[in-house]
Amino acid sequence: MLFSDIAILDENFEVQTGCWVGTVEGRIAYIGTEAPTPEEAARFGEVYDGDEKLLVPGMFNAHSHAPMTLLRGYAENLPLQTWLNDRVFPFEAKITDEDAYWATVLACAEMLRYGTVSFSDMYYHSRERVRAVTECGMKMNACEGLLAFEDKPYAEYPISALNEELIAEFHGSAEGRILIDYNIHAEYTSTPAVCADIAALAKAKSLNIHVHVSETKSEHEECKGRHGGLTPVRYFDSLGVFDVPVTAAHCVWVDDGDIDILAERGAFVASNPVSNMKLGSGFAPIARMLERGVSVALGTDGVASNNNLDMYQDLFVLALAQKGANLDPTAVSPAGALRAATRTGALSQGRADCGHIALGAKADLAVLDASGPSWCPATDLLNNLVYAGHGSDVCLTMVDGEVLYRDGVWETIDVERAKAEVEVRTRRIIASV
Amino acid sequence: MLFSDIAILDENFEVQTGCWVGTVEGRIAYIGTEAPTPEEAARFGEVYDGDEKLLVPGMFNAHSHAPMTLLRGYAENLPLQTWLNDRVFPFEAKITDEDAYWATVLACAEMLRYGTVSFSDMYYHSRERVRAVTECGMKMNACEGLLAFEDKPYAEYPISALNEELIAEFHGSAEGRILIDYNIHAEYTSTPAVCADIAALAKAKSLNIHVHVSETKSEHEECKGRHGGLTPVRYFDSLGVFDVPVTAAHCVWVDDGDIDILAERGAFVASNPVSNMKLGSGFAPIARMLERGVSVALGTDGVASNNNLDMYQDLFVLALAQKGANLDPTAVSPAGALRAATRTGALSQGRADCGHIALGAKADLAVLDASGPSWCPATDLLNNLVYAGHGSDVCLTMVDGEVLYRDGVWETIDVERAKAEVEVRTRRIIASV
Repeated sequence: MLFSDIAILDENFEVQTGCWVGTVEGRIAYIGTEAPTPEEAARFGEVYDGDEKLLVPGMFNAHSHAPMTLLRGYAENLPLQTWLNDRVFPFEAKITDEDAYWATVLACAEMLRYGTVSFSDMYYHSRERVRAVTECGMKMNACEGLLAFEDKPYAEYPISALNEELIAEFHGSAEGRILIDYNIHAEYTSTPAVCADIAALAKAKSLNIHVHVSETKSEHEECKGRHGGLTPVRYFDSLGVFDVPVTAAHCVWVDDGDIDILAERGAFVASNPVSNMKLGSGFAPIARMLERGVSVALGTDGVASNNNLDMYQDLFVLALAQKGANLDPTAVSPAGALRAATRTGALSQGRADCGHIALGAKADLAVLDASGPSWCPATDLLNNLVYAGHGSDVCLTMVDGEVLYRDGVWETIDVERAKAEVEVRTRRIIASV
Repeated sequence: MLFSDIAILDENFEVQTGCWVGTVEGRIAYIGTEAPTPEEAARFGEVYDGDEKLLVPGMFNAHSHAPMTLLRGYAENLPLQTWLNDRVFPFEAKITDEDAYWATVLACAEMLRYGTVSFSDMYYHSRERVRAVTECGMKMNACEGLLAFEDKPYAEYPISALNEELIAEFHGSAEGRILIDYNIHAEYTSTPAVCADIAALAKAKSLNIHVHVSETKSEHEECKGRHGGLTPVRYFDSLGVFDVPVTAAHCVWVDDGDIDILAERGAFVASNPVSNMKLGSGFAPIARMLERGVSVALGTDGVASNNNLDMYQDLFVLALAQKGANLDPTAVSPAGALRAATRTGALSQGRADCGHIALGAKADLAVLDASGPSWCPATDLLNNLVYAGHGSDVCLTMVDGEVLYRDGVWETIDVERAKAEVEVRTRRIIASV
């Protein structure tokens, strides 16, 4: 495709108007302020009219639980432990493989609708999630949730065999769109021995680890009580977890020492500001993390605590909440929020050639329709994109150069079928819990 | 119009499915769970198919500055005083009557797009704002901004004569859609004598007062320094301001004593959570206000600090921010946020027959398209509406029974003309400051 005379969010996260961007074989092959020659243009195929449009990198959702789409709107506005123990866990125990498949298909439809191309997904039913995402044409870093309470090494848990199968079958599958990560659910749901084993395995196999860290104050404080004053970050660091690329989700209650460790170890923090606010967990010190050089990515978390998969809403809330919580209108710039939601997310997934509009990068792109009244005047499209626009302004989403969503049409998903399946399956589960 | 077999947000802010709602002569004339008889139905005219739709009260924006649409995206991410003094005030000094007119037309287009029917607008250029809103068919409580620094009574300020003209010409005009309020910009921009004069006049004429209160910590503390420890709320109360219906915008830094006064005096608080966060002003104690019985309405504030006029985004952020700031996932329920954005807003404007779906109420309504993936499963449409849906799901907005926006078409506004006018005028102003 050749995006013609279009405004783009460039590699430096600045908006440039009047650009031409061409894609060939899944990659960005041309970026210029002049149209390519007719011979060059022929390589790109369809010409896309860029009038009143903005071309941006697709969103990389750094922390999600796709099958939790089934729980949208279910049992809300409750104290956290009541919500989790009395409502969410019993519901989740009833989710079958096919339920998880259809919920993931619907999650893909929703993410594509709002310009997301890839997501780091922590849940169970990994085969079904991989099948759904492969069919939909999106990218996913999947990890199978690990709960380990017993005093035995990781190798003696059944999940260790499953993980080896998943890695062998799916890591790098779908032309590299599917990657498998290791999971440690959290400090309070695993043992030191298992964490150390996972860290060693991930290091040996050059795989990433995806882990929940310091989401709530009680989790953070109880960890210190259990482990001689070690915070979750220091605890995981002592077990070698940060010797490999880690996506540390949440990090709401990390202290300055934790932040220094995250920066030094090159860990990725997946911030989930909407979920953290909605569950009453608090505000992560993102502005301080960015100042100290931590790589901050952005996630939605599960739909049960968001309640949608529109990353544009999350990046708006990220920029807004940091200003409010720090009483500082300069905290988290628009470019900083966009970088977190795209390029840093891609890097957190080990996808070095994704997440920005650069020559040779994968063509993971979205187009926003900037013709609505919220985009006028167009004197600063970067501010308009973050503060005034909507995820619903996305009118085209492309993954590896393939258009998967355009103007209300999903090319790879039967959305009405997915909706109907999720509706019936959710009602079956609710009737049974 | 007869909305047929549709889900509605009822008078108690609960969702009821399978309803019929009919409008006649600008009012809601039928609400039932069965279709009206063919004879009855004939009175309502067009039948609107409610499949996968949700009928809600239109939004009442309790605090805005419509002409600031011109400043969207201009000079952002700066410290508050730099932004205001060095950038906003010089820009505003260049806004002409015609600039204000076109910016208000564009603001109306944006509000209608996102289901807003009425707004309480504090700014200058009142005649032009009234003209724009009258033509667009929306409702507005307009007040002319009052800045009074001199030691003389209100009657000696030129604005006093202008206000009398505005009240005589426009209060109750456009079949009651336009109302004129008195304004006190803020404690720090007026004198005690002028505040007392305005309070007495408003009381005598049964008009509302719209005023900024305790938006920033410095404003709140400096007031106490100037007035023997009186907070802005206590200061205004001592001058009789709360003897009349007041819309007190912001109230971010009010203390418990202030909250008690606001509750006892029946004042309306117009909370602007997006603006307060974006400018780094903080989080208003809305959860506590609601507990103590304060009437909390919701506003966008001006586009320069929001940056759009989508009240659905503001009500999402209201519900979210209160949970985050109070570390309490039960703070501000979905129904509470929706009531603030609709019914309480209408009451704050003195429009007792507006703001909810009730027999005999004005037909100020919006329809949301609930067919997108963010709305599935539909097991709890109230949670979906507040947490998962988008303002862009609005597909029809009706004021006094007249459809003003529907499926991308504005019936009363030439949006392309308004966009072009605002674009040219903004660039003229930026070039001149």
